[in-house]
Amino acid sequence: MIKKKSEEPALIDRTTLQVRFSEVDAMQIVWHGEYIRYFEDGRESFGRNFGITYMDVFNSGYTIPMVEINCQYKFPLKIDDRAIVETRFINSDAAKIIFEYSVFRESDNLLVATGRSVQVFLNEDFELELVSPDFFVEWKKKWNIIR
Amino acid sequence: MIKKKSEEPALIDRTTLQVRFSEVDAMQIVWHGEYIRYFEDGRESFGRNFGITYMDVFNSGYTIPMVEINCQYKFPLKIDDRAIVETRFINSDAAKIIFEYSVFRESDNLLVATGRSVQVFLNEDFELELVSPDFFVEWKKKWNIIR
Amino acid sequence: MIKKKSEEPALIDRTTLQVRFSEVDAMQIVWHGEYIRYFEDGRESFGRNFGITYMDVFNSGYTIPMVEINCQYKFPLKIDDRAIVETRFINSDAAKIIFEYSVFRESDNLLVATGRSVQVFLNEDFELELVSPDFFVEWKKKWNIIR
Amino acid sequence: MIKKKSEEPALIDRTTLQVRFSEVDAMQIVWHGEYIRYFEDGRESFGRNFGITYMDVFNSGYTIPMVEINCQYKFPLKIDDRAIVETRFINSDAAKIIFEYSVFRESDNLLVATGRSVQVFLNEDFELELVSPDFFVEWKKKWNIIR
Repeated sequence: MIKKKSEEPALIDRTTLQVRFSEVDAMQIVWHGEYIRYFEDGRESFGRNFGITYMDVFNSGYTIPMVEINCQYKFPLKIDDRAIVETRFINSDAAKIIFEYSVFRESDNLLVATGRSVQVFLNEDFELELVSPDFFVEWKKKWNIIR
Repeated sequence: MIKKKSEEPALIDRTTLQVRFSEVDAMQIVWHGEYIRYFEDGRESFGRNFGITYMDVFNSGYTIPMVEINCQYKFPLKIDDRAIVETRFINSDAAKIIFEYSVFRESDNLLVATGRSVQVFLNEDFELELVSPDFFVEWKKKWNIIR
Repeated sequence: MIKKKSEEPALIDRTTLQVRFSEVDAMQIVWHGEYIRYFEDGRESFGRNFGITYMDVFNSGYTIPMVEINCQYKFPLKIDDRAIVETRFINSDAAKIIFEYSVFRESDNLLVATGRSVQVFLNEDFELELVSPDFFVEWKKKWNIIR
Repeated sequence: MIKKKSEEPALIDRTTLQVRFSEVDAMQIVWHGEYIRYFEDGRESFGRNFGITYMDVFNSGYTIPMVEINCQYKFPLKIDDRAIVETRFINSDAAKIIFEYSVFRESDNLLVATGRSVQVFLNEDFELELVSPDFFVEWKKKWNIIR
């Protein structure tokens, strides 16, 4: 798989989390599927800090299902570790919400995982929106992502 | 805590499941919280077999949030184990749905956990129903739980 | 079920958490099983603050599997809510670790759930310890729970 | 991201699963992270059917952490749906275990998601193996994947 070179992020959020006992698997490392939750933690922290939470979107008349997610694992997190999730908003001309993620071990800033997610907009009739909804365009303007 | 002697179950369902790798914790045993999902597996299997799934209830105009759940752990399940969840409907005069659960290791029928859950009825205005909804009374009659 | 009156807690920890999107179920409320994780969040915060984490216990030669857990649900948490988990250590003469939990909605301190968990000690041969291990007795003395 | 054309699968497993109530999110569809568990269900079913479970690998002296996973979502699964997970072993000359996944809605065989995972071998000293372990080569020969 050839990964497209990441574009310049328009906005960046960083949030920290504590590894939970229940997230550790039989190999004594965080189960790989938990990073999908960590990315969600990052995305939700981003939403709260930049005014674009799931409920903000929902109240504008849209839902934003995931259409693609991926994760690359570099180094395992273990019990008692704390992690930093960096969430970067990647602007796109398409009617999509694209985030890239980097997860770092807090103690030494070691990069432990990276990822990327793509969401689309469904309107209240669950139809795919082919152009970015007005509220999303306004949000981008507010944060100087577009003019 | 003094546990009330279990009443006679009115209907019984049994379903089997396979322990998943991701359910095992750092102690190499199934994480205790996963049994709450196993009980849900049992409750949903019961619902499919006796015609009272979450969607059946929802389409009758009600939701049935949990108000109490408990679990007693007797013996750990491990990776590669299969388990049988026995779900027993306990009739009550109150407007409640009460289930009791027994989880057995499939290989030798060892009892590994027991539990009990209590759900109530909320109507479409999210108000607590103090008497059993008609659809629930009819369901009990259909299965000869009440006359 | 008749619940034994709670004993006086010996030590208390309070930690806050953010409800995650993935924790909300089809009823638009936090899925009941997630509170078992919230209790674990509380127990782990307690462990870090009072020097008795899972790894502290493990390094003393013991594991502490759950033998009983229960949860009573008073009011639902929803998306975007924050919650406070209060974890109270209940001293026991038996070789058990007993915690009681109260979960509050942060915005108005509404009590949303309560619970209790009981753990036992297994030694390195996975045998049940019938008397409290020395490290646990020392830990209690350090915090003036016993003399 | 440009996805490499999938190679011919060497072995294929199909397993079915029932969507659980707790897997559905606030959008009334299966939460995207649950598909990572569905892929694991597929991988474990594959392992049981072709004699290469996690414990088989572990007993050969290796662990096989995930180094990359991705998922593309085509159509949402909902409550009460059943799904088929097709897991395809993709042979590689590298010391890697590669699987591709297709998830179908059982009722009409609609393709709802696809994915791919890559695992590597760590020996008992947690060092990365650069060539395929003997047991893995033997396993491939047994199934006529290599000569």
